[in-house]
Amino acid sequence: MFLPKGYRFAGVYSGVKADPEKLDLSLLVSDHPAVAAGVYTTNRMCGATVHVDRPRTPGSDFRVVVMNSGCANDCTGDRGIRDAEEMIRTAAATIGARPEQGLVMSTGVIGEFLQMDKIRTGIVKANEWLAGDEAAFEQAARGMMTTDTHPKMSSRQLTLANGKVVSIAGMCKGAAMIGPNMATMLALVFTDAMLEVKQAQTLLKATVDETFNCIIVEGHTSPSDTVLLLANGASCPEPLTGTDYDAFAAAFGEVCLDLAKAIPNDGEGVSHFVTIDVTGCKDREAAKIIADTIARDALVKAAIAGADPNWGRIVSAAGYSGIGFDVTKVGLSLNGFELFRDGTPQPFDADVVSASMRDHRDVSIVISFGDGDANIRYWTTDLTEEYVRLNADYHT
Amino acid sequence: MFLPKGYRFAGVYSGVKADPEKLDLSLLVSDHPAVAAGVYTTNRMCGATVHVDRPRTPGSDFRVVVMNSGCANDCTGDRGIRDAEEMIRTAAATIGARPEQGLVMSTGVIGEFLQMDKIRTGIVKANEWLAGDEAAFEQAARGMMTTDTHPKMSSRQLTLANGKVVSIAGMCKGAAMIGPNMATMLALVFTDAMLEVKQAQTLLKATVDETFNCIIVEGHTSPSDTVLLLANGASCPEPLTGTDYDAFAAAFGEVCLDLAKAIPNDGEGVSHFVTIDVTGCKDREAAKIIADTIARDALVKAAIAGADPNWGRIVSAAGYSGIGFDVTKVGLSLNGFELFRDGTPQPFDADVVSASMRDHRDVSIVISFGDGDANIRYWTTDLTEEYVRLNADYHT
Repeated sequence: MFLPKGYRFAGVYSGVKADPEKLDLSLLVSDHPAVAAGVYTTNRMCGATVHVDRPRTPGSDFRVVVMNSGCANDCTGDRGIRDAEEMIRTAAATIGARPEQGLVMSTGVIGEFLQMDKIRTGIVKANEWLAGDEAAFEQAARGMMTTDTHPKMSSRQLTLANGKVVSIAGMCKGAAMIGPNMATMLALVFTDAMLEVKQAQTLLKATVDETFNCIIVEGHTSPSDTVLLLANGASCPEPLTGTDYDAFAAAFGEVCLDLAKAIPNDGEGVSHFVTIDVTGCKDREAAKIIADTIARDALVKAAIAGADPNWGRIVSAAGYSGIGFDVTKVGLSLNGFELFRDGTPQPFDADVVSASMRDHRDVSIVISFGDGDANIRYWTTDLTEEYVRLNADYHT
Repeated sequence: MFLPKGYRFAGVYSGVKADPEKLDLSLLVSDHPAVAAGVYTTNRMCGATVHVDRPRTPGSDFRVVVMNSGCANDCTGDRGIRDAEEMIRTAAATIGARPEQGLVMSTGVIGEFLQMDKIRTGIVKANEWLAGDEAAFEQAARGMMTTDTHPKMSSRQLTLANGKVVSIAGMCKGAAMIGPNMATMLALVFTDAMLEVKQAQTLLKATVDETFNCIIVEGHTSPSDTVLLLANGASCPEPLTGTDYDAFAAAFGEVCLDLAKAIPNDGEGVSHFVTIDVTGCKDREAAKIIADTIARDALVKAAIAGADPNWGRIVSAAGYSGIGFDVTKVGLSLNGFELFRDGTPQPFDADVVSASMRDHRDVSIVISFGDGDANIRYWTTDLTEEYVRLNADYHT
């Protein structure tokens, strides 16, 4: 793990979650004022933290991000917004920063108010545990987990033209809305390089479009989805330019992709991790809509769970996506086996293809349209009985 | 059952399905030339029968509809289209009509060619069984079934201003794309009243929008979805006008609604039949998009299967539907219990609401937006482990 300089982390148990074995409150502190960018859910019923963070980013001079799991603070009206603001105020005061220097993320059950006494005590406790090492980073990643089975982290390091070494690290949580209660996708990526405010926002938005916006579990956009980028310049205070910026953007993209793919890969009940390549479309938007429709389709996903090489469901999903195409140019491969070409079924040994799906957790779908040069890659899950069991489970 | 005059029916076993206990080929014959209207799938990968029927309707002078189950004749290219045309030609010749007087519908497995020798023999056999009674009508309805657990039929009768009595009857099959292989929604509604060609098409389109287009199982639009309307004027040869037409349109709407609701109600693995009312929207299109998003949402559906009054998933689905609304005006009731009002969670006894969901197969969701007067009603299913088990099952 390459940890950027000038950051400290902590993850503690505050008491919001029922199980004291699980962490539920994290801090990330930047010892230098950091530029921050944010990309948020498009859900109209957006959570209190999104209300609070959205107008603050992009911006500079940030010092602290406070996160809790176990309670999403969604659908909690004005009181929820006041609570989110108080989380920031408390965290900032505790680490010796001003209230406007903080950001906040929450995830967990919807429609319940934060237990602010526990949150306050948790923040004070987390402050005592702050450290810049890998163990602390992992604790912080654990503190944002809900139904995740493991903390999700990634990092890269690169050397700038001036010889300075900068690092990028990130953590995320979530398996989309796959949790037994409302879950959320949260990600926090931070670097000791420096970026201009506008540059940070542009980079984050473009990268999210290629990574976090290309993963689907069941297609439910949570009210609190948030991706934050912090850049504090601790290793090189001048904003990146030219080839340094390009190399940084590539490494940043890799970190975000690692984190994004970790989400469907850890989806509850998931038995296959599916990569969907849509190729040869007129434009990227058309490719994205087709990929999105296939990735959401319950019948496609159920067939993959059952190792059923049911190519008909995949081409049919493309067919109802709303995108026009020439059927006689459509081709499809599944795990490398060509099942459909020029709009015509190809002879294949269904047992062999099925065995390949049964024997590999990773499944590859490539669907081609011969309409142009635009491609997209999506990542998704299968749909298992276990998924339904987990999400149908009624807990009082 | 009110059966329109001048029609005869048959359903037989042709050998396309493996199980000889199941019927797989049906004929509907009109002894008088009938006006026909059709509404078809919007799926780009549309099946051969849709290719053949679409240019024929709306039109007049139809005598026969031939239907088979067990093979959808989808994704079968030019040969599939030739086979569909031959089905019509054979059926027309067998009953003594011309080839242009026929229509065809197929449902079943995708990507396989029709076994035309069996289809031809089946048509001849069906012709021998043609009869105008209820038993024959039910046999025809059985012949179009795939994974349906029972034939789906409905009828109405009304008296015109001139004292003549006309009837409307219909049959349909399908549980959307819920079958272990590709399934399809097919419906055939016929009357002994008479309609103008344009009037028939307008009525059918408007009625489908309020009925068959308001049902969702998992949201997969099949390549062969077809709804046909036949009007032969056997009881009253003059096209309907004025209040007669209005009364007929209302009764026709009831028949279509009965048939449409029967589809999700018979969905495989379904444990709840869900009615979703979206009220107080700016326009019908907005209401439809919200209803559609809620009805497709895997998390909403899984929660209903588990009798979990998880209102957060429902309002969150509305939130990501893409429709703008004022969150502080949103309200939600589940089985008559008000759980959310003016954007704020209402206190409720979760065990009582859960018990109400567990104890009733019918679940009602009412979500209101206070933005206008437009409403829509949708019907859907829950999402059960059984659904996934059935649709993941790999048969060689």
